[in-house]
Amino acid sequence: METARIGVTGLAVMGRNLARNLARHGHPVAVHNRTSARTRSLVDEFGHEGTFLPADTPEKFVGSLERPRRLVIMVKAGGPTDAVIDEFAPLLDPGDMIVDGGNANFADTRRRESALRERGVHFVGTGISGGEEGALHGPSIMPGGSAASYEALGPLLEDISAKVDGTPCCTHVGPDGAGHFVKMVHNGIEYADMQLIAESYDLLRHAAGLAPAEIAEVFRTWNTGRLGSYLIEITAEVLAHTDAATGRPFVDVVLDQAEQKGTGRWTVQTALDLGVPVGGIAEAVFARSVSGHAVLREASQNLPGPSRNDAFVSFGFPEAVEKALYASKIVAYAQGFHEIQAGSAEYGWNIDLGAMATIWRGGCIIRARFLDRIRAAYEADPQTPTLLTDPHFTEAVGDAQDAWREVIAIAAKLGIPVPGFSTALAYYDSLRAPRLPAALTQGQRDYFGAHTYRRVDREGTFHTLWGADRTETTP
Amino acid sequence: METARIGVTGLAVMGRNLARNLARHGHPVAVHNRTSARTRSLVDEFGHEGTFLPADTPEKFVGSLERPRRLVIMVKAGGPTDAVIDEFAPLLDPGDMIVDGGNANFADTRRRESALRERGVHFVGTGISGGEEGALHGPSIMPGGSAASYEALGPLLEDISAKVDGTPCCTHVGPDGAGHFVKMVHNGIEYADMQLIAESYDLLRHAAGLAPAEIAEVFRTWNTGRLGSYLIEITAEVLAHTDAATGRPFVDVVLDQAEQKGTGRWTVQTALDLGVPVGGIAEAVFARSVSGHAVLREASQNLPGPSRNDAFVSFGFPEAVEKALYASKIVAYAQGFHEIQAGSAEYGWNIDLGAMATIWRGGCIIRARFLDRIRAAYEADPQTPTLLTDPHFTEAVGDAQDAWREVIAIAAKLGIPVPGFSTALAYYDSLRAPRLPAALTQGQRDYFGAHTYRRVDREGTFHTLWGADRTETTP
Repeated sequence: METARIGVTGLAVMGRNLARNLARHGHPVAVHNRTSARTRSLVDEFGHEGTFLPADTPEKFVGSLERPRRLVIMVKAGGPTDAVIDEFAPLLDPGDMIVDGGNANFADTRRRESALRERGVHFVGTGISGGEEGALHGPSIMPGGSAASYEALGPLLEDISAKVDGTPCCTHVGPDGAGHFVKMVHNGIEYADMQLIAESYDLLRHAAGLAPAEIAEVFRTWNTGRLGSYLIEITAEVLAHTDAATGRPFVDVVLDQAEQKGTGRWTVQTALDLGVPVGGIAEAVFARSVSGHAVLREASQNLPGPSRNDAFVSFGFPEAVEKALYASKIVAYAQGFHEIQAGSAEYGWNIDLGAMATIWRGGCIIRARFLDRIRAAYEADPQTPTLLTDPHFTEAVGDAQDAWREVIAIAAKLGIPVPGFSTALAYYDSLRAPRLPAALTQGQRDYFGAHTYRRVDREGTFHTLWGADRTETTP
Repeated sequence: METARIGVTGLAVMGRNLARNLARHGHPVAVHNRTSARTRSLVDEFGHEGTFLPADTPEKFVGSLERPRRLVIMVKAGGPTDAVIDEFAPLLDPGDMIVDGGNANFADTRRRESALRERGVHFVGTGISGGEEGALHGPSIMPGGSAASYEALGPLLEDISAKVDGTPCCTHVGPDGAGHFVKMVHNGIEYADMQLIAESYDLLRHAAGLAPAEIAEVFRTWNTGRLGSYLIEITAEVLAHTDAATGRPFVDVVLDQAEQKGTGRWTVQTALDLGVPVGGIAEAVFARSVSGHAVLREASQNLPGPSRNDAFVSFGFPEAVEKALYASKIVAYAQGFHEIQAGSAEYGWNIDLGAMATIWRGGCIIRARFLDRIRAAYEADPQTPTLLTDPHFTEAVGDAQDAWREVIAIAAKLGIPVPGFSTALAYYDSLRAPRLPAALTQGQRDYFGAHTYRRVDREGTFHTLWGADRTETTP
């Protein structure tokens, strides 16, 4: 009886495409789905692409896998994932591997990994980015779990991943939940990047008065330069598209209420727990949230706008927006990588930050030329506290900043919301400030709550007797 | 044997002062602490203030309370609170009440309330704001729990709370965790308010070039107007203070690394779960976080600043900053109240938003003249989706906005970080925007992930076949 090198259970579009990708690469793949109609349709439609071993029961599915078994589950995150684990784990032996390719919360992955480790089963929480097309043609793959599991899984996963300059977009991220953590931050960065692009579009539209088709051309030009990336490329495609039903620009017929699935929110909530400032991601999540509050927006339509709201057309404005976008993007990525660095330290994952930039260069939504620069920055200084101090980025932001500041000033005056640009600049100016007004905050906290403060000139913790003679004490 | 009307266990500074406050108001109060030295010292020092019934065991403590028993626990949130509940609950009878006056997470309060309700014991999670001074002289009190428990507790709590125009700063917030939820958002708003004040100070210092003592005068003036509030008042006090050791302004000798305890973070994390945009609170939490990252800041000291960084002194600049502060403050409070409204809807608490503004007018850190305006706004329209559409606030922001926009533009150009002002303006401009670039975001999401979109002109959910002939489908 033929055995499969790997098995995939859960054959919705992502699971199906991942199974096809494996089969196309010559790996015999066992396939299983809760309702077996999906299994049959996969084999009927795509059986010619490689060797599929369909199974209609968990027992047959597990029985068809070579040992140690490699079992990929591609089901909804949360309860459904636990249910599938509970179903399959009793059928496995020590040394077998369960790969969770869904968008699990890394805390769940840590819990599951720990529980299965006690039975000797490897649980490999794996971020997979690139959507259905990526799953089929080569995603970016971020596997966590044990180093031993990567020995057995890595070659297969690298084989089906995207490649850039011959390098697979897959590497062992780190133990237990590291893979899903990094995938979460990847998505958070994606939120920030999309928000910055949205603000750039909005400025070109409403400050410069350009039409969507003209803005598409601007993005096409940008795509040939340092901003070259998948997101910039598809922005041009979306903006150039005309709605067939109305003949209007497509972007004008789409309801302007952005949706979200939760990984952006998790990224911010986790950053708050880790004490990492990620304003760029938070503002992106909030911007989608604001857009979706239809009742609130409807009620606010008569709020007064600025007295000066004429279109502002100026020679060189698109170039200024490009600089604002690039500088803000550097900040947003620096914040995201800071979060990975902090998570890695908190959980002892020892994540190679440069390697993360490397495996995001292809397959995933945020693939971009720019990531080569991030890789180079971490190669030059693996422990750098921030990407902003890398010479390339320092110079780029330094060169961009006058335009960046001007664009934000124009947006404020014209009433065009730029929360992403603004938070990025505030973060940048906060980092480089010799003194922050946080000293006043500490003084207030000592005043109303006796929370104490430290001094710039002496070690120790101090409290001023504000309600008495205002002498300073050392509690 | 004399019985106590209420008992307090946990006699650190907050518990001690709350017990004294009760005794001073003529309520015989049982007092207990894990280590009885604290109990004795309270009675020794303050026994003359009223009737204290010290108890050195939980049994004696509970035995000294009149029925139904009212037992206030004032211990650290988290594990210690659970430990005290586990210790005392078995000693109580149905109808008795446990009041948790600590800074508990409202989710914990919901869990505890539900568990104790099964035994017939009322668990009353209660927010208490005002620090140690407030606890002694009259705090703002936010009790959750059952309406029945408020019947028995309300008169006592109202008696010891702050009063404004004769109205107690205490009311029944709503069932189970409503009190701690509202206290959490109160603290989140406090973070936002303090951040906006910090930015105002920073601008007056570094854009207008004023000295701390001069800025103290500006805040003193503001305190006599619409910004009149405890936080503005103590800002003037802190800025006017001179460090005795060095003769320098106090604010210049305080280390500029702000600390935080967690309720600000919770407010943002909860808002993210509820889908409520609270950029003002988030940026305040992040600003404290940035300030505390000493290594990151140290590494960033050579990042280039704007080419124009000369002090900008202009006639009328403090007035412009006052307008920016007031407008930003309205937005921050509108976001906080939106979060309470959303939490109330999510958990079925039926919170009276105007009553929250009312009980915050005295006793607590954010007490302010301004809250009368908020109370009036909710009296005029209890269901308003946002405070911003209240005529007073609409007019105030409308009047302030040109200055607000100008101040942000100046800050951006001078390199002074104003994340709080900026996020508030972006939120305001997003709400009133007829169209947001979220339409582009939805187009991108449909392009890379087939996430579908809605249209402005037809009901339904649509997907464009981006990879094929770009016709529109209805999946």
